[in-house]
Amino acid sequence: MNITVWNENRHEQSNPKVREVYPEGIHGAIAGFLKEAGFGVRTATLDEPEHGLTDDVLSLTDVLIWWGHQAHDDVHDDVVAKVQQRVLDGMGLIVLHSGHFSKIFRTLMGTSCDLKWREADEKERMWVVNPSHPIVDGIGETIELDKEEMYGEHFDIPVPDELVFVSWFEGGEVFRSGCTYRRGLGKVFYFRPGHETYPTYHHSEIQSVITNAVRWAEPTTRPQPIRGNAKPLETIAEKE
Amino acid sequence: MNITVWNENRHEQSNPKVREVYPEGIHGAIAGFLKEAGFGVRTATLDEPEHGLTDDVLSLTDVLIWWGHQAHDDVHDDVVAKVQQRVLDGMGLIVLHSGHFSKIFRTLMGTSCDLKWREADEKERMWVVNPSHPIVDGIGETIELDKEEMYGEHFDIPVPDELVFVSWFEGGEVFRSGCTYRRGLGKVFYFRPGHETYPTYHHSEIQSVITNAVRWAEPTTRPQPIRGNAKPLETIAEKE
Amino acid sequence: MNITVWNENRHEQSNPKVREVYPEGIHGAIAGFLKEAGFGVRTATLDEPEHGLTDDVLSLTDVLIWWGHQAHDDVHDDVVAKVQQRVLDGMGLIVLHSGHFSKIFRTLMGTSCDLKWREADEKERMWVVNPSHPIVDGIGETIELDKEEMYGEHFDIPVPDELVFVSWFEGGEVFRSGCTYRRGLGKVFYFRPGHETYPTYHHSEIQSVITNAVRWAEPTTRPQPIRGNAKPLETIAEKE
Amino acid sequence: MNITVWNENRHEQSNPKVREVYPEGIHGAIAGFLKEAGFGVRTATLDEPEHGLTDDVLSLTDVLIWWGHQAHDDVHDDVVAKVQQRVLDGMGLIVLHSGHFSKIFRTLMGTSCDLKWREADEKERMWVVNPSHPIVDGIGETIELDKEEMYGEHFDIPVPDELVFVSWFEGGEVFRSGCTYRRGLGKVFYFRPGHETYPTYHHSEIQSVITNAVRWAEPTTRPQPIRGNAKPLETIAEKE
Repeated sequence: MNITVWNENRHEQSNPKVREVYPEGIHGAIAGFLKEAGFGVRTATLDEPEHGLTDDVLSLTDVLIWWGHQAHDDVHDDVVAKVQQRVLDGMGLIVLHSGHFSKIFRTLMGTSCDLKWREADEKERMWVVNPSHPIVDGIGETIELDKEEMYGEHFDIPVPDELVFVSWFEGGEVFRSGCTYRRGLGKVFYFRPGHETYPTYHHSEIQSVITNAVRWAEPTTRPQPIRGNAKPLETIAEKE
Repeated sequence: MNITVWNENRHEQSNPKVREVYPEGIHGAIAGFLKEAGFGVRTATLDEPEHGLTDDVLSLTDVLIWWGHQAHDDVHDDVVAKVQQRVLDGMGLIVLHSGHFSKIFRTLMGTSCDLKWREADEKERMWVVNPSHPIVDGIGETIELDKEEMYGEHFDIPVPDELVFVSWFEGGEVFRSGCTYRRGLGKVFYFRPGHETYPTYHHSEIQSVITNAVRWAEPTTRPQPIRGNAKPLETIAEKE
Repeated sequence: MNITVWNENRHEQSNPKVREVYPEGIHGAIAGFLKEAGFGVRTATLDEPEHGLTDDVLSLTDVLIWWGHQAHDDVHDDVVAKVQQRVLDGMGLIVLHSGHFSKIFRTLMGTSCDLKWREADEKERMWVVNPSHPIVDGIGETIELDKEEMYGEHFDIPVPDELVFVSWFEGGEVFRSGCTYRRGLGKVFYFRPGHETYPTYHHSEIQSVITNAVRWAEPTTRPQPIRGNAKPLETIAEKE
Repeated sequence: MNITVWNENRHEQSNPKVREVYPEGIHGAIAGFLKEAGFGVRTATLDEPEHGLTDDVLSLTDVLIWWGHQAHDDVHDDVVAKVQQRVLDGMGLIVLHSGHFSKIFRTLMGTSCDLKWREADEKERMWVVNPSHPIVDGIGETIELDKEEMYGEHFDIPVPDELVFVSWFEGGEVFRSGCTYRRGLGKVFYFRPGHETYPTYHHSEIQSVITNAVRWAEPTTRPQPIRGNAKPLETIAEKE
């Protein structure tokens, strides 16, 4: 499987604290543990030509991981349209944290994807509510993060096809933190944690979830569906 | 409840056969039986200013019904954006037949909404697969339509929140014909039948389903969700 | 609509604290606000003959509410079987709090319905995650209960058809607190709060949710489905 | 992975036509192609002691396949209870065809699992409605079976977690033919085709679906959930 890890990669340029936590960028950290898991991995970032998501890259990508935050509007609409088409054609998509507001996620969801948020160094405890799902293989009953940004309900998303995690936050909120969707032939997983100033993507269970999600999102091998005008498969009676 | 029935209203102008079946337009036929059911009903059509969907009309509409076919591209993007926002704010939306390819439905679904189709005067038998749903109140185990256009799988929609009808077609296909979705605070129902040359909207059970769907799609009365930056509801411990 | 409120009614006999909170029993409190809402309401309790759920009572009941806790095993299996059959035939069922372990709920779910619990006078904050659902009509973004028993995940239930509430607990857990299911022609709603020593059923928003749930669970008016051996509706070709 | 294929194995004894189609029994046919796919496979049948499902066999089984028809009532309730417990503990379960009426399937569903049926040598065309699901990997848009027993809606099952196939029948019915459920830690797949007098389990695409389903139903590797009385994870404030 070929994975492309896409990152906005702007905080890493402007904020030394982020650079300290992720010296090779958030994309570098994620690519690192996915390579160790045996996947073919490339990275792509916003400021590359075509945001690094050329037709060639997209056509070779089985699963795309997306992290963005402050520059969602800088992503070109035609790249968004191409990514959407690739998802509909079967590519898996894993949207992380602040990617909830990315053009690609909003386009695939059809809703605002808005939520509550707060940066307060608060504790998050993610509870597994779908224990037989392959995305939680090897994961205990909770994942605890000592400090994370809070995201709170109501999260304006379509009803998830599958709800995998629900987060408890120290400040009093809950959040649907792990949500799967199917769009066209592609599988989509939204996974909440990963504020840029915290070492969340160095956390081994977070890495396991993302690795499991990549496997889950692998495209099926099937002929593309046939659509449009269709000849009958059975005889249709003459009617008056 | 205030209902707005939106119709493209182009076939009625150009095709005498359609005009014969629907002398007051598809919108007129639908508005007729909804008025009899006691709703406040207005109509709106593509060629009116702002397609008849001004801010005033939209803000007064509890449930919008949508029929379009050959002129989806003539619907202005800013009207589509306003309708989407009203759905997210709570307005119900009932999308009929060829409206599967409308901009508003594709925007809310995030998929191509493509399908198989055939015009062959063929029999459709819609089977109720969700017998306790209020949308099928008073409906028997099937609705039979002697002649309809065929729509066949794979229908490129997100997994419905609720699947209400599955159609059997004489020519050998099946179709998920009645599908509910929630988007934001709004409820959406897609209902398959209604090719312009057939008297489908004069069929009493089809009328019952649409009437039931209008009731089901009624907005809830609740304060709008609070989103954005949020103060904690509980004390967050100082951390080192 | 005719509602029957079933209560085990044992804590009320043995525990003065419960009797103080619910002088007319939990069933009396629930019956009270449902009568005010205009429903026809009767009550039934464990120690009545046939637990108060005779064939006549069941056949006249549109929606049954169920509260039980310490004496689940005292409910006769044949009464459970009759209640199950009535649900499959269309009766609505609202299972409250410790009713998660009742025979009828476990029978309808097919799982253990086990969970974590703790009695510690702790705060529960129920978050609405399905804002367009009729069950939360008129309800704000949360319902706060100063003191309740904690129920925590993993709650061993089938994936809910609709998830309406998620609870945050002071002690660190979350819980899927409002869950809908369809079984046969009947609608089922599980609603978490209501420990016997707290005045939860005197809380106006809790009363609103239960009242809304009763309306939501109203049976549809339809002929019973036809099952068993079936004659073909279309001609089947002779095959060699 | 270790698979156990359970078969009632009565038609094979009494009906020469069935024995001709399945000389090694339905269980033998299914075990055959699963062995070729590389799984560890054993078989078990009704007339063995404990129906071949001893504690040892069950504890070693990752996925159980179930075919039964005329002798559902001969399956001992304690064996059913053990199989249910193993599913809740994580074992996958694939229920085939007339197994819809088996005690184990009805127990896990909580409904009657009744349906329409007809034996008329009629054509079934199964349409894939969930094209990204791993269970349809390698499968075309339909699977055609020249002659099968008809099963028709309304099928009295809970709403499937995922609907994978919908069948078209020559005689005019449709059916939800491939349905997934989660129960406890276990995954359940109901797959419709397989009347005993037809060579359905010799059909290569039917074999592919069952093989895919076995892989999909593989248990996750996780600690068993902790339930019962639970100590708080956070400090609970004293209240007056």
